[in-house]
Amino acid sequence: MNRSEIDSALHRLDADFGVFLRKTPLWKLSGAALGLDCAEIWLKLEHLQVGGSFKARGMLNRLRAQPIPASGVIVASGGNAGIATAAAARALGVPCEVFVPVVSPEAKQARLRALGARVVVTGAAYAEALQACLARQQDTGALLTHAYDQPEVVAGAGTLAQEIEQQGGLPDSVLVSVGGGGLVAGIAAWFEQRVRVVALEPELAPTLYRAREAGQPVDVAVSGVAADSLGAGRIGGIAWEVTQRHVKDALLLSDEAIRAAQRWLWKEMKLAVEPAAALPLAALQTGRYRPRADEKVCLIVCGANLDPATLA
Amino acid sequence: MNRSEIDSALHRLDADFGVFLRKTPLWKLSGAALGLDCAEIWLKLEHLQVGGSFKARGMLNRLRAQPIPASGVIVASGGNAGIATAAAARALGVPCEVFVPVVSPEAKQARLRALGARVVVTGAAYAEALQACLARQQDTGALLTHAYDQPEVVAGAGTLAQEIEQQGGLPDSVLVSVGGGGLVAGIAAWFEQRVRVVALEPELAPTLYRAREAGQPVDVAVSGVAADSLGAGRIGGIAWEVTQRHVKDALLLSDEAIRAAQRWLWKEMKLAVEPAAALPLAALQTGRYRPRADEKVCLIVCGANLDPATLA
Ligand SMILES: Cc1ncc(COP(=O)(O)O)c(C=O)c1O
Ligand SMILES: Cc1ncc(COP(=O)(O)O)c(C=O)c1O
Repeated sequence: MNRSEIDSALHRLDADFGVFLRKTPLWKLSGAALGLDCAEIWLKLEHLQVGGSFKARGMLNRLRAQPIPASGVIVASGGNAGIATAAAARALGVPCEVFVPVVSPEAKQARLRALGARVVVTGAAYAEALQACLARQQDTGALLTHAYDQPEVVAGAGTLAQEIEQQGGLPDSVLVSVGGGGLVAGIAAWFEQRVRVVALEPELAPTLYRAREAGQPVDVAVSGVAADSLGAGRIGGIAWEVTQRHVKDALLLSDEAIRAAQRWLWKEMKLAVEPAAALPLAALQTGRYRPRADEKVCLIVCGANLDPATLA
Repeated sequence: MNRSEIDSALHRLDADFGVFLRKTPLWKLSGAALGLDCAEIWLKLEHLQVGGSFKARGMLNRLRAQPIPASGVIVASGGNAGIATAAAARALGVPCEVFVPVVSPEAKQARLRALGARVVVTGAAYAEALQACLARQQDTGALLTHAYDQPEVVAGAGTLAQEIEQQGGLPDSVLVSVGGGGLVAGIAAWFEQRVRVVALEPELAPTLYRAREAGQPVDVAVSGVAADSLGAGRIGGIAWEVTQRHVKDALLLSDEAIRAAQRWLWKEMKLAVEPAAALPLAALQTGRYRPRADEKVCLIVCGANLDPATLA
């Protein structure tokens, strides 16, 4: 994964911006405005992306890059990757099947159906829904999208970093949440060594952190407030490779700190975001990441798929 | 009210931006991205302002412009004007008294107290709380802020229009909600005839509309989903004068259309806003305002003081 793959994604998606994708606002504030000891905080408001998360970029890039069979596209995900795949399929007018486990909330299934997807509810947990999805894909030959470990998906996420640079120039550091690592990989592949990319995970979903301890990707038990979005069971192969090259810092945050930052973003900033999007602010508010006084820190506000009642 | 008063406000508030005030994002989208038949939609995300509404600009401008006695500042408002006055007083380190009627929800009173204000709960309705506030002001000599009919408050609101021009140039039209008219007056005073300013009111709170019918400001009964913010009982004198000069269109919208637009902004755009902030989109979605195909329409997203549970 490298900048030229992200350039290709930008080229491929060019006509989609303004229709099926959005350039999201980059909001520059002083550190003081957020009560933080650094020169500037840049909030990349990517939770305002189509479908409520950055995933739209990668999924549409994958669908634009590959031939799509008559059987359409297929994915196993009740979360943002499923929503983004369904939205991308609808944009292109192709059929979409989404496999979700029985524990998946009815509201999320309804959302997928509203996007025109056929929802298959099967298996007690995600792993079983995935198995059923892969078996089905063998039968139908549909194009499979993966939430984080396909080159087009990572390159799509990388367009977010290019957009930041285009809108605001280079920050000193970028703070970003990690699930399977597609997002951090796309961002680090774009910025390379020009910006310090800081990878953030919940203590209860430490896929990159544990991989570093083990010296290779390993399976990890995941739970906690952000498991919905950051609950991949192991860091992706692409993310492992890119982060080994470009990312020095991998930090863990408690669920309490994540929830506190999420609530603060609503109360003080009127940004309604899901827990996964609050890790960057949590890293600053807890002092887990300490910027220099003159530092420009960019926080990736990555998703807004939440029940707003949970903000109160 | 004219551009030079707004220039003075900008000058006076210069050092406050980045600390006690924010420059809020201007988000340019294609009409197609919102399913609308016009070239561009600009969303001015002023609901992300300090305190969750544009009122912060005017209140801080008033407090910076006037000498503040030891007794501090005083206001009658349980809504955004009260919050903005309390926040401005805290920023300047001066005492603040806020008068609210007994019907005012405990959550709003708590919010005012959290901002350091002394909250006085008195009177069955707003008019009585206002009477008590004015009597108290006579006793203490505190600096009174008015929600919409003071020159500094209107000029402060006008800084929002200058910010739009600075960030994005001139749109063709600006769609803006009207309560007592401070916001629309500030915006129209800045743009003058250079931009078509469209004033929007709920059918159930038609202060400007009825004033135009009567040929002068008149008392109006107010109710409905946006009464919290747009429930002034009569158009302000400054607003009357400025809108007579600069605003041709004054349109009414139903509560159903306002609520539908508010829900759409959450569901499709992940913007959590109060009903008052949804009138501009409602005007487009209902066809009440029909832009030309090549038009650049700016929507003022003016406030986010809501219980997020109401978005579900
Ligand atoms: C809102 C949000 N943030 C962050 C992530 C993590 O992305 P990745 O799995 O690419 O690391 C996800 C993944 O679904 C997400 O939905
Ligand atoms: C969110 C919001 N929008 C619009 C308005 C209307 O402003 P004005 O009373 O200046 O017309 C208000 C007034 O409180 C408000 O709080």
